[in-house]
Amino acid sequence: MTTQRLQQQIAFIIEVDKIKQIYRKNFVIGGERHETDAEHSWHLAIMAILLAEHIDYPLDILKVIKMVLIHDIVEIDAGDTYCFDQIGGLDKAVREQAAANRLFGLLPEDQAQELRSLWDEFEQRGSLEAKFADALDRLQPLLLHYNTEGKSWQLNGITSGKVIERNQRTREISDKLGQLVDDIIEDSISKGYLKK
Amino acid sequence: MTTQRLQQQIAFIIEVDKIKQIYRKNFVIGGERHETDAEHSWHLAIMAILLAEHIDYPLDILKVIKMVLIHDIVEIDAGDTYCFDQIGGLDKAVREQAAANRLFGLLPEDQAQELRSLWDEFEQRGSLEAKFADALDRLQPLLLHYNTEGKSWQLNGITSGKVIERNQRTREISDKLGQLVDDIIEDSISKGYLKK
Repeated sequence: MTTQRLQQQIAFIIEVDKIKQIYRKNFVIGGERHETDAEHSWHLAIMAILLAEHIDYPLDILKVIKMVLIHDIVEIDAGDTYCFDQIGGLDKAVREQAAANRLFGLLPEDQAQELRSLWDEFEQRGSLEAKFADALDRLQPLLLHYNTEGKSWQLNGITSGKVIERNQRTREISDKLGQLVDDIIEDSISKGYLKK
Repeated sequence: MTTQRLQQQIAFIIEVDKIKQIYRKNFVIGGERHETDAEHSWHLAIMAILLAEHIDYPLDILKVIKMVLIHDIVEIDAGDTYCFDQIGGLDKAVREQAAANRLFGLLPEDQAQELRSLWDEFEQRGSLEAKFADALDRLQPLLLHYNTEGKSWQLNGITSGKVIERNQRTREISDKLGQLVDDIIEDSISKGYLKK
């Protein structure tokens, strides 16, 4: 017989499978369908591994990876709130706190505390790791928008001011990634993917 | 202007987006659609974090996570070879080696070497980390098959002998996970999800 501890871990692993059915606003490259939260989180983890060297300070990469892998789990209960949705954004925090209580609460207490604390840190941008994770969470959709010719921006009436605002924090932690973001936005405007 | 190094990293990050369009044989839980490789890889990374404590020897968890995140990238070129497909399995290694050369070759040389070496290690089960990653790669679909009442097993005519054989290595690295696997298979048979 498996122990209660292992049963709790498996229950969580099964429950978070639902993140594969939470669809984001952006599209996968070359595809017709929207990206799922699980796919997005996988992509952030790959980016964290490859791009950590561009952060101007030393950081704990394992912590960043854990953060990006779990950062959207709360959307299983709270749904994906579009980053440019001002009304949905109003009660987002309340909905996501309740989701975090329920979902992380499925785990054995020590693991629940570890992941919850990582999630809180991410939400509050409370460390260099959280700021890097947050920058990746903004850069990754930017890359997908750019590589789908701005399809989702156009469908949702998003203009360059909002995109610039959403990505301006990146420069706080990395000049190089900040420059990359500026270049992509500028090129998106000049190619007509993003309205000025 | 971004450096050539950063451009290579971004080119890889864009290219591997294609893993979101590689569909596996198993279904997501409760859903009607097949799981993508990106979703599967995300799930393995979550499992690695939570279940590492059940491995009977100390291991480098960051290495395991990197391994599971990249283990299926080669399927972008080589396609998903169903684990029970004996004919597709014949030239799988050749197709996947070529894919690894091309895909990891997009990266700056040091990162290409690191990820390629992790992928080789995974393929060869050449370390405790690789054996754990491999066991997760077998346990995760088992959990999904069980929680979709064996839908994919039935559609593909898979019987218990094959599933037992595929999961028997798990006990080599963890008694507890080995027992879990046995319990799930036994329960799948008794519930009629898996034919004896």
